[in-house]
Amino acid sequence: MASHTLLFHPSNKTATVPTGALIVDALREAGLEVGQPCGGQGRCGRCAVVVESGTIRRRSTIRLSAADLEAGYALACQSVVEGDAAIFVPEQEQVERRLVTDRSVSKVAVPFPYDPVRDQTVRAFALDLEAPTLDDATDDLGRVERALALQGIRNPDVPLPLLRELGDRLRRGNWRVSAVVETDNWRQPDGPPRLIDLGPGRRDVPLERLLPEPPGDGPPGRLYGIAIDIGTTTVSVFLVDLQTGEALDTAAEYNGQIARGEDVISRIIFAGKNNGLGELTQQVRGTVNELLSRLTQRAHVDPLQIYKATVTGNTTMTHLFLGLPPASIRLAPYIPAVNRPLPLLAAEVGLNIHPRAAVDCLPGVASYVGADITAGVLASGMAESDALTMFIDVGTNGEMALGNRDWLVTCACSAGPAFEGAGVVCGMRATRGAIEEVWINSHSHEPTYRVIGGTAPRGVCGSGLIALTAELFITGVVDKGGKFKMDLGTPRLREGAHGPEYVVAWAAETAHGRDIVVTKVDIDNLMRAKAAIYAGFSVLAQSVGVNLGDVERLLIGGSFGKYINVEKAVQLGLLPDMPWDRFHFLGNTSVMGAYMALLSREARARVTAIAGKMTYIELSADNTFYDAFTSALFLPHTDLSRFPTVAALEGNGRNS
Amino acid sequence: MASHTLLFHPSNKTATVPTGALIVDALREAGLEVGQPCGGQGRCGRCAVVVESGTIRRRSTIRLSAADLEAGYALACQSVVEGDAAIFVPEQEQVERRLVTDRSVSKVAVPFPYDPVRDQTVRAFALDLEAPTLDDATDDLGRVERALALQGIRNPDVPLPLLRELGDRLRRGNWRVSAVVETDNWRQPDGPPRLIDLGPGRRDVPLERLLPEPPGDGPPGRLYGIAIDIGTTTVSVFLVDLQTGEALDTAAEYNGQIARGEDVISRIIFAGKNNGLGELTQQVRGTVNELLSRLTQRAHVDPLQIYKATVTGNTTMTHLFLGLPPASIRLAPYIPAVNRPLPLLAAEVGLNIHPRAAVDCLPGVASYVGADITAGVLASGMAESDALTMFIDVGTNGEMALGNRDWLVTCACSAGPAFEGAGVVCGMRATRGAIEEVWINSHSHEPTYRVIGGTAPRGVCGSGLIALTAELFITGVVDKGGKFKMDLGTPRLREGAHGPEYVVAWAAETAHGRDIVVTKVDIDNLMRAKAAIYAGFSVLAQSVGVNLGDVERLLIGGSFGKYINVEKAVQLGLLPDMPWDRFHFLGNTSVMGAYMALLSREARARVTAIAGKMTYIELSADNTFYDAFTSALFLPHTDLSRFPTVAALEGNGRNS
Repeated sequence: MASHTLLFHPSNKTATVPTGALIVDALREAGLEVGQPCGGQGRCGRCAVVVESGTIRRRSTIRLSAADLEAGYALACQSVVEGDAAIFVPEQEQVERRLVTDRSVSKVAVPFPYDPVRDQTVRAFALDLEAPTLDDATDDLGRVERALALQGIRNPDVPLPLLRELGDRLRRGNWRVSAVVETDNWRQPDGPPRLIDLGPGRRDVPLERLLPEPPGDGPPGRLYGIAIDIGTTTVSVFLVDLQTGEALDTAAEYNGQIARGEDVISRIIFAGKNNGLGELTQQVRGTVNELLSRLTQRAHVDPLQIYKATVTGNTTMTHLFLGLPPASIRLAPYIPAVNRPLPLLAAEVGLNIHPRAAVDCLPGVASYVGADITAGVLASGMAESDALTMFIDVGTNGEMALGNRDWLVTCACSAGPAFEGAGVVCGMRATRGAIEEVWINSHSHEPTYRVIGGTAPRGVCGSGLIALTAELFITGVVDKGGKFKMDLGTPRLREGAHGPEYVVAWAAETAHGRDIVVTKVDIDNLMRAKAAIYAGFSVLAQSVGVNLGDVERLLIGGSFGKYINVEKAVQLGLLPDMPWDRFHFLGNTSVMGAYMALLSREARARVTAIAGKMTYIELSADNTFYDAFTSALFLPHTDLSRFPTVAALEGNGRNS
Repeated sequence: MASHTLLFHPSNKTATVPTGALIVDALREAGLEVGQPCGGQGRCGRCAVVVESGTIRRRSTIRLSAADLEAGYALACQSVVEGDAAIFVPEQEQVERRLVTDRSVSKVAVPFPYDPVRDQTVRAFALDLEAPTLDDATDDLGRVERALALQGIRNPDVPLPLLRELGDRLRRGNWRVSAVVETDNWRQPDGPPRLIDLGPGRRDVPLERLLPEPPGDGPPGRLYGIAIDIGTTTVSVFLVDLQTGEALDTAAEYNGQIARGEDVISRIIFAGKNNGLGELTQQVRGTVNELLSRLTQRAHVDPLQIYKATVTGNTTMTHLFLGLPPASIRLAPYIPAVNRPLPLLAAEVGLNIHPRAAVDCLPGVASYVGADITAGVLASGMAESDALTMFIDVGTNGEMALGNRDWLVTCACSAGPAFEGAGVVCGMRATRGAIEEVWINSHSHEPTYRVIGGTAPRGVCGSGLIALTAELFITGVVDKGGKFKMDLGTPRLREGAHGPEYVVAWAAETAHGRDIVVTKVDIDNLMRAKAAIYAGFSVLAQSVGVNLGDVERLLIGGSFGKYINVEKAVQLGLLPDMPWDRFHFLGNTSVMGAYMALLSREARARVTAIAGKMTYIELSADNTFYDAFTSALFLPHTDLSRFPTVAALEGNGRNS
């Protein structure tokens, strides 16, 4: 195979790659890197480069405007090298590969101007106390209170365990100590501050690590916080420097509860078993602590320096994390124990950080519209915007919110596990070996697919199933009703053990030596899932008397948005048919919301206001949702006028 | 020996007793009882009866006025039967012997008009919740909050363990439950209320015992509280019905720490040893829990129904109870960790009551003027009086306060253990076998004594030592300087192993077959102790420019006041020489103060104000105390003009 040399500007680095390689491969070869938040699927536009000269074939240009294309832009992840070329890599997208270590530290920039004195509720204060005398025999606590009052901290709560060490710490610190204080909390913005810790004094931690004294009169040492998003599938943690506000590093891991069920319903059922709740609580806390351990080791942070945590997640996950029985979430009328947990301490919830660290759970709205959605709405900024905005976070459930700065409505619809690759004959999670993208030749009906990790396929994940089904529909292999056209004359269509099926990969190609198929049942499951989501959009819009077409922005949060191919999701009738530029992929908005609430008192007030003003629409309350759902049980929809671009494809005769 | 019959009115009961018996013995014989708060020592006047006819010899009439005597009054505990008699027993003093059980339940009347709705911070609320529906899907906590808000309880704190049980309790109670709420706390009178518990729902306690639902729409079930006084020697507990305010029963027991030292200094030293603090904390909590167990069993109260506790004690005892290291209390400049502990929960301090019961420690003033003194001042009412009042509580230390409604000064002086019978050659605590009262014949110098329990003597307790020394002085056996007059020609005066000594009881009379003596060293110790106390009085008066003679009331709290013979204490120069009617014995004012604070928000505010306005005079700060102490190192004092009644006795030639 021919090789080609690419020259990258402005670094003047070069790479030699074979024909058919992607520009992104050549960039890696040259030791350069571009951001790929969408996972290299041509959807985020973050890897845009400029082709200065040479032969490059643009496989997809979804995220590029006509003007971009005219200026020579190409998506590095979607552009195939077919000859030598010179490529300009815009500086803002360039990330210096960290050659010093083999670990990747993912910093996240502070999402807004951050001033810890103004914004932060957990702060450190240097106290220079006068030593007691017979003439000033104030008790130890009174002396600390007096010094704190001079810095505006009045009548702090002091926990008994700290009081027990107070005298020793004051005397060992020779009356010069640093106090870590929670100045106010979510529950009581005007309530008493809380003394979390006082250093020096811990015998087992070197003073300079607990709360390093500043060399001069500067502010005392470093304080850290963590933002935790507990997803049903994935737990994400940000480690944040509370002085600068920067997220120093992030980490994510499968929720340890997965072994006990893939979706919230199966977790709730498991929690009802003998000690099931305790086990699930331990598992998710274990996952968080494992991530914490990873982050603190990488950043050389003492876990005891972490004085604050914010937690978000769907209502079931929050309940399981807190050890609250979730049973009533599952049973009509679907009542959680609590939507807005009160402020807690780390020791109460088993987090391996400072035992008296403040732990604040973000507020949720209902059993199926949890803190992950309020956090997402916060992170999306839609509640501060005039634009009519739809926000959606799809996992096993689809939660959506519609509104603007003045009002918000929200609902949740059960999508089932199809989007996550579960409940599907050859389904699997989006891990190594999963077919994640499929193209079908509209004449031969033969598929081409991409596998996560580039290995032989083992199954089909959620995004793969969406792509596959959309392609099957667009290329006429299935009809509007989702039924296979068995008479197309391709050997890939056949009657299998589960009824009609389409063979995506023959046994010879697969990792396990068995055919990978999609069945009629799988497609029916997927259609019910997509119909539920689309019906949710419809009902939400209808509930406030607007048309889906009036929605100015459609914001997609969560991992679903991270991997989905919008074009195919629209072809399927999962997402509404609207101009590309109205879609925005926001990534994990839930953890971003937790991060914002970790940083800022104002963000906390905002998410509280969001939870307070969101009107929850219970879809099972009447027939509106059922009617909308039934109408959506077609590809793409009973009412084709809602999907003009798909209708145009059909008009092209690809499926009629 | 002759027998005599006594007829008691109005009960018309009779008793037959031998010559020399006391009226109180005859009353017991007749199945009648009179109050004897002073322990039958003729000091409290509570056992006053009227001799209608017959031959009765009044041994002591200290508490009776001339008018009383004219009206025929006699003290039952001090009046000897020498013939048949008819006695009228005033009804208010009559206590029906509880024949149904052999245990004595000591109820204490509510000390002020008590209205739980107005006065109490821990209350129960019956909640009649609407069951959730799809149209009203408020979360469980929100539903409880909504119902509480209707009763004026807004934004309660709800602890995580209760939140975990919330859903189950609401559903098992079919949405009709009782909530126990701490409406406000000492720290934050305006702060959020706290939900302590919610019933029904506990599986291990029958519903009707946890929080019995009222039959109609009356107030929900019974709530109990406890008032705890932790003395260095004795721990006292009141069990209180928070609905009526009545103390249902009281109990007291030696502080389990006694094995680790008799006074606070030795306890502090022991606390500094390896695990010493932990051991002392366990011991005193063990004592309190033992008393609690006794009280709850007797009253058939479930300990989990006790939702509130107040704790008082000297500063060292409070520290040890809370597990706070007391070391700095002992070392100049004598700084406690905390004078005003913040509100705590029972589980934090190891009390075997409801784990989330509110535990409030009363505020102290300084290392040696603790919450027992502020509680005492509260109970004494002196801070609400115009009268210039001196309050004193003497144990191993003497703490005193002087003032009125406008101002208060306070100090503490180390009396040493002599008043408690320790550090004395034949000293012992005031238990069975202790000589507690002594009279000496001024001609023969032979003693008569009374022994606690009426047995053969084993030693001399504090009050016995005071009586003995005063008698020795008044009868001329010792001189003003406390030196024995060895030339009196009595065999009771001799040189012993510890120098000059007086034999109180010969070996043949004693329980252990050894002479019981008082030595020159014992008398010197006692003189130092009494001089310290009297010097404290002097300095306190001097510090505010008043004369001791201007003091309108001298209130004596604590067990010292319970057993001391005032006349002899004045003769010794321990108490100032003032008219009898200015002395008032208040009993255990510390536990009474805790009881008041348990009942009433206003009492809590008052004791906080008392602690805040008490000016602490540190006696070691200059020579004023030392000078006053030196002047008081005589019997009764260098300046005899301060003790006119004692001077008059001397003028009678009994000691010159």
